[in-house]
Amino acid sequence: MVKIIVGVMGPGSNALKKDLNNAYEIGKFIASKNWVTLTGGRNEGVMNEALKGAKENNGLTLGILPSDDKITFSPYLDIPVCTNMRSGRNYLNVLSSNIIVVCGIDHGTSSEISLAIKPNKKIILIGLYEEANKYFEKLAPNLIYVVEDYLEAIEILKKELN
Amino acid sequence: MVKIIVGVMGPGSNALKKDLNNAYEIGKFIASKNWVTLTGGRNEGVMNEALKGAKENNGLTLGILPSDDKITFSPYLDIPVCTNMRSGRNYLNVLSSNIIVVCGIDHGTSSEISLAIKPNKKIILIGLYEEANKYFEKLAPNLIYVVEDYLEAIEILKKELN
Amino acid sequence: MVKIIVGVMGPGSNALKKDLNNAYEIGKFIASKNWVTLTGGRNEGVMNEALKGAKENNGLTLGILPSDDKITFSPYLDIPVCTNMRSGRNYLNVLSSNIIVVCGIDHGTSSEISLAIKPNKKIILIGLYEEANKYFEKLAPNLIYVVEDYLEAIEILKKELN
Amino acid sequence: MVKIIVGVMGPGSNALKKDLNNAYEIGKFIASKNWVTLTGGRNEGVMNEALKGAKENNGLTLGILPSDDKITFSPYLDIPVCTNMRSGRNYLNVLSSNIIVVCGIDHGTSSEISLAIKPNKKIILIGLYEEANKYFEKLAPNLIYVVEDYLEAIEILKKELN
Repeated sequence: MVKIIVGVMGPGSNALKKDLNNAYEIGKFIASKNWVTLTGGRNEGVMNEALKGAKENNGLTLGILPSDDKITFSPYLDIPVCTNMRSGRNYLNVLSSNIIVVCGIDHGTSSEISLAIKPNKKIILIGLYEEANKYFEKLAPNLIYVVEDYLEAIEILKKELN
Repeated sequence: MVKIIVGVMGPGSNALKKDLNNAYEIGKFIASKNWVTLTGGRNEGVMNEALKGAKENNGLTLGILPSDDKITFSPYLDIPVCTNMRSGRNYLNVLSSNIIVVCGIDHGTSSEISLAIKPNKKIILIGLYEEANKYFEKLAPNLIYVVEDYLEAIEILKKELN
Repeated sequence: MVKIIVGVMGPGSNALKKDLNNAYEIGKFIASKNWVTLTGGRNEGVMNEALKGAKENNGLTLGILPSDDKITFSPYLDIPVCTNMRSGRNYLNVLSSNIIVVCGIDHGTSSEISLAIKPNKKIILIGLYEEANKYFEKLAPNLIYVVEDYLEAIEILKKELN
Repeated sequence: MVKIIVGVMGPGSNALKKDLNNAYEIGKFIASKNWVTLTGGRNEGVMNEALKGAKENNGLTLGILPSDDKITFSPYLDIPVCTNMRSGRNYLNVLSSNIIVVCGIDHGTSSEISLAIKPNKKIILIGLYEEANKYFEKLAPNLIYVVEDYLEAIEILKKELN
């Protein structure tokens, strides 16, 4: 009965175009499987694009938001969970996801990858920069997948979640 | 696009039979409106019964859970949001709800009613005991509705959410 | 080695003069015993007055703050713990206190009393209004003391903490 | 009036001997300046050793604990702040510190470094491994200091906090 939840993480502001595109395609794929797309829920960057990809393809979307200020909510959000915890909600993002897909890196995303390790979540890094890949592969060799693009990430999602 | 979320709060253990019945009926009504039923998510008491009422009537169910221990999850849960915050998650329950329906009282429920006041949520108390009614009506006269049964609560939900 | 921590809770804005005076005297007493005075840490109401009473009598003061905005910090604070959790920090206030003294009531204070019950903290209500006393005595008869003034509260602190 | 708080972060279990020694020496130095030593508060690894260094040199020690289970508290703790937030408390650790000293790396520490960046905290990494240094220097070039040993870290603390 319980639905599979896939977390999509990445920069809010300053996301690269390729990260946004990966996020959109991953959201679209998640929707095609009737899974739930979970992000940080704001109307910016990777968060927003993954929700858009899911929503435009009839997926169910869930956001765990740093504040309850509606102006910051993504318009592609079905279910806003409000925390008023600012960055403290990053832990909830990963704890509530069955698996995590990372599209680009910034400090918030870095905290999410780090916090996903203790609860033993698999983490798929799409085309991150070299230093991040080396660092996280050393930090959690059994949990980290590094892939080139969203197509490879989708293959891993299929394998891990079926 | 964003869905209406109705929080149903009440005792986990030690819920009275009438509170469980009210919770079930409220969950059922929420489902009939295509709103989301939000509770604390555990497989006990009012939380579980509201989710059951919603789920058995094809509603969408959301739980904000105190831990990530799957054994404690309600079987009627579609979307488990895990916090590992124990009672700290009570604030998130009310902050994420458009309106709150209370079926019976214990200390956790009491914290949820109290925490719902600052973010200005309407709170419907169904048949609570006399001391609680008097106390909360004095604490937040503009937000509290005291009603006799689930039928009255449904009338208020219709009025407030339509 | 670990210090005894006494939590003093009550309204921020809209505290009554008698509540402020009780808070000051309780803070002063806590300092005289070399215990730590814990409050919500802001520069307002009961929080601020208890810290002032402690600080002006050479006590150690600890605040668990809803935000990291320094403008909101009490000037009588030795140790600010920042949470950025807004009302979510109310749970931490009571969980970190050995015992709780309540000077006046509002919704935040009401959540703190309620949240203190599960972790089994003793709670001293000084001169609260009738509805609150009756309500909380019914909710947690084994944990609640209702007293008239700060002198009675001090007697209970002595008994419970020595 | 408000005290300076220095956060010391690093692995709980699996800390290396040199990391423990660095933590002890940093705690000792913090105590010598009458600053507060803040850690995650448990009786293990870098957390415990920094508190020990501070406490054995008459410093004031503060722990922000993942649970309220007293068995897990460091014996060198003056002030235990209990959160029951598990890894969620990592954000509070860094938000409550004026500056952060890192002695060794694991996933928890990695989340703390990452979460310290948004609130703009300076972070001193003592002798971390190569991948971590390169990664964090790229992630936050204006906030990260990489140093060889505790003596160098002390020089930076003096410069930043005086």
